[in-house]
Amino acid sequence: MNQPTEPKADKSGVRRHNLSLVLRTVHDAGETTRAAVAARVGLTRPAVSSLVEQLLDLGFLVESGKTFSGQAGRPGTVLKPAGTGPAGLGVEINVAYVAVCLVDLNGADRIRRSVRLDNRAADAPEVLARAAGVAAEALAEAAALGLHPTGAALALPGLVSGGTVRQAPNLGWHGVPAEELFGDALAALRPAAGRLPVASDNEANMAALAELRFGTPGTPRTFLHLTGETGVGGAVVVHGELLRGAHGFAGEIGHLVVDAEGPRCRCGSRGCLEQYAGQAALLRAADATDVDDLAARAEREDPRARAALAEAGRMLGRALSGAVNLLDPEAVVLGGIYPRLMPWLAPAVTAELAERVVSGLWPADALRLRAASPATDAARGAAALVLHDILADPLAHTR
Amino acid sequence: MNQPTEPKADKSGVRRHNLSLVLRTVHDAGETTRAAVAARVGLTRPAVSSLVEQLLDLGFLVESGKTFSGQAGRPGTVLKPAGTGPAGLGVEINVAYVAVCLVDLNGADRIRRSVRLDNRAADAPEVLARAAGVAAEALAEAAALGLHPTGAALALPGLVSGGTVRQAPNLGWHGVPAEELFGDALAALRPAAGRLPVASDNEANMAALAELRFGTPGTPRTFLHLTGETGVGGAVVVHGELLRGAHGFAGEIGHLVVDAEGPRCRCGSRGCLEQYAGQAALLRAADATDVDDLAARAEREDPRARAALAEAGRMLGRALSGAVNLLDPEAVVLGGIYPRLMPWLAPAVTAELAERVVSGLWPADALRLRAASPATDAARGAAALVLHDILADPLAHTR
Repeated sequence: MNQPTEPKADKSGVRRHNLSLVLRTVHDAGETTRAAVAARVGLTRPAVSSLVEQLLDLGFLVESGKTFSGQAGRPGTVLKPAGTGPAGLGVEINVAYVAVCLVDLNGADRIRRSVRLDNRAADAPEVLARAAGVAAEALAEAAALGLHPTGAALALPGLVSGGTVRQAPNLGWHGVPAEELFGDALAALRPAAGRLPVASDNEANMAALAELRFGTPGTPRTFLHLTGETGVGGAVVVHGELLRGAHGFAGEIGHLVVDAEGPRCRCGSRGCLEQYAGQAALLRAADATDVDDLAARAEREDPRARAALAEAGRMLGRALSGAVNLLDPEAVVLGGIYPRLMPWLAPAVTAELAERVVSGLWPADALRLRAASPATDAARGAAALVLHDILADPLAHTR
Repeated sequence: MNQPTEPKADKSGVRRHNLSLVLRTVHDAGETTRAAVAARVGLTRPAVSSLVEQLLDLGFLVESGKTFSGQAGRPGTVLKPAGTGPAGLGVEINVAYVAVCLVDLNGADRIRRSVRLDNRAADAPEVLARAAGVAAEALAEAAALGLHPTGAALALPGLVSGGTVRQAPNLGWHGVPAEELFGDALAALRPAAGRLPVASDNEANMAALAELRFGTPGTPRTFLHLTGETGVGGAVVVHGELLRGAHGFAGEIGHLVVDAEGPRCRCGSRGCLEQYAGQAALLRAADATDVDDLAARAEREDPRARAALAEAGRMLGRALSGAVNLLDPEAVVLGGIYPRLMPWLAPAVTAELAERVVSGLWPADALRLRAASPATDAARGAAALVLHDILADPLAHTR
């Protein structure tokens, strides 16, 4: 069956919607059958079969020879999302690196590139051009694997809205039209290819999205997400959705004040959390060269490393207690550099929360401190954003 | 036309829904015509007329003799919500008073009672019985006005869930089944009347709801709401909805830490905002007997009063900067005792926000500090909650 021509716009709209529904259902299940899809989405078996045929023809789904007896109806051929074809490209630009991740329709992490770069030493167009270079390499590799990204999403360490970085204090960026600059640079590197649509968001939001989509089972639906990088990024997820705020700038946990008279922060305030628990502050306080060095010193009970981590943990706990009192999440998720530092951070964080969370729920099971799941970084979250667009309207993403 | 009997449950469900839709449309407009309602809700004119007839018969709407030429269609008779019949009763119980408010179907504030009581000196059942006594008087007055409350809602200064006050530090309550105790006490006072359904929520949430429903034009849809009472209550409204959090305890701005080594708070933490900006702390610091006295002293430039207000404003600004960084609201609304103290609080609050809000949006027009609108207290918000239930399903609230 080729793409049916639909006589009326609204009927065509319904079919587009149903194609998305079926594709998302297969995506969420990983592997399933036509009968199970029909039972799940509430369409008839013939209607689902017709939609599945179109998705197979267009390369969004594949069928394996084996049969599978689900709970609903007769055994059927197994359907799953294609491991080739449409894909999502995520690009994280941070102070000290650029990371690229490409996910396929299964959400599987197919290509990873990470390059250490001093992004504070170059101007914004140069940094975005470097990132485009890393992305172009990943795209060449993708083509060889039969993967065709339909868009790219940028994860950026600052306040992002309308495609522009309004402010990224740790990069020294103000009013940088990141989507346009990156898109131009990437197009220049790939003159034969069409221009790739580019989206963008704050890196902490992207990391929270990755946790939500790719987190280990039991990942909560309402949580605070902190990422320790040069600064401290934050995101708020409520009932499975990012809380964006009135202007798209919600989640700046790193700039909660933990000591009103503390050191001046790049944001203009004083005593912000990231002046104590950001990577730069933490390494300085511990006299460590990098996170590996810090973890190694803490492991061998170096007093300065242990003290720096305990102090960072106290300050994290202090800021988090305020955020928990305000938002009442199920969990607090620590990502970026924090997961590997948890043994030394967690006790101080937990003690502060136990003292300061007003609901008295902490540290009961109802509220939990946890490390981010593996492979849930901002680049993968950005790739998930593109994947989300594909799943929402597969017909708009055919070649 | 009398109540039509509907042959099928789903058809009857559709009619119930449409009755609510029409009633809400008239409620939102204040005054309108059948033609304007039809244009607004997308039903046919005859369908709307049939629904309107039923709502007139049941006493939810009234028709006035005058005609009204709206933009849609011919002039028609003016419809408006009835000023008699179903109504909502709101009851706020706070540390030093009980306040009762009764609103009619227009949302108009028809009955108000406020009684000063030392609610810390009595146990919880006694306090709830006192509140039931005040409510019973308001109900007697309501009957005389032809108003019939279909339910009561309690606004309580603590963490409330499932009808129970989990914790109200300023009242010294823990695990108090407030809805049941209040409902029992009220039923005992009105043996001839049926038992009134009772709902409950945190008083700050109720006050935010009142601001949302009854605020002056231009009230934002995404805002932080603080109420200065004995403590400092807080609520978070996002796109017109209360943010409740995972367990219903979100919004505790009063327990954001503004000085980690500050005085011990009743919640168990130290240096919470309410230790500086709550009414008790503020009066103590200013050596004032009550808020009238404090405002009078500030007016005549009493240095101690001015200093106490400036310090409270600084601490409010410090806590609010964290909340604004986390939530990115359009506005911060100060209610309770704060509106009349704004001239002396606002400069310090604004200065802190200007320094500490990372987005740099403060104090631009995009983000505003404002006093709560008049008559938007927690009792009226609680009454609005009952009104909301009536509007959502009028047939469930006929006598």
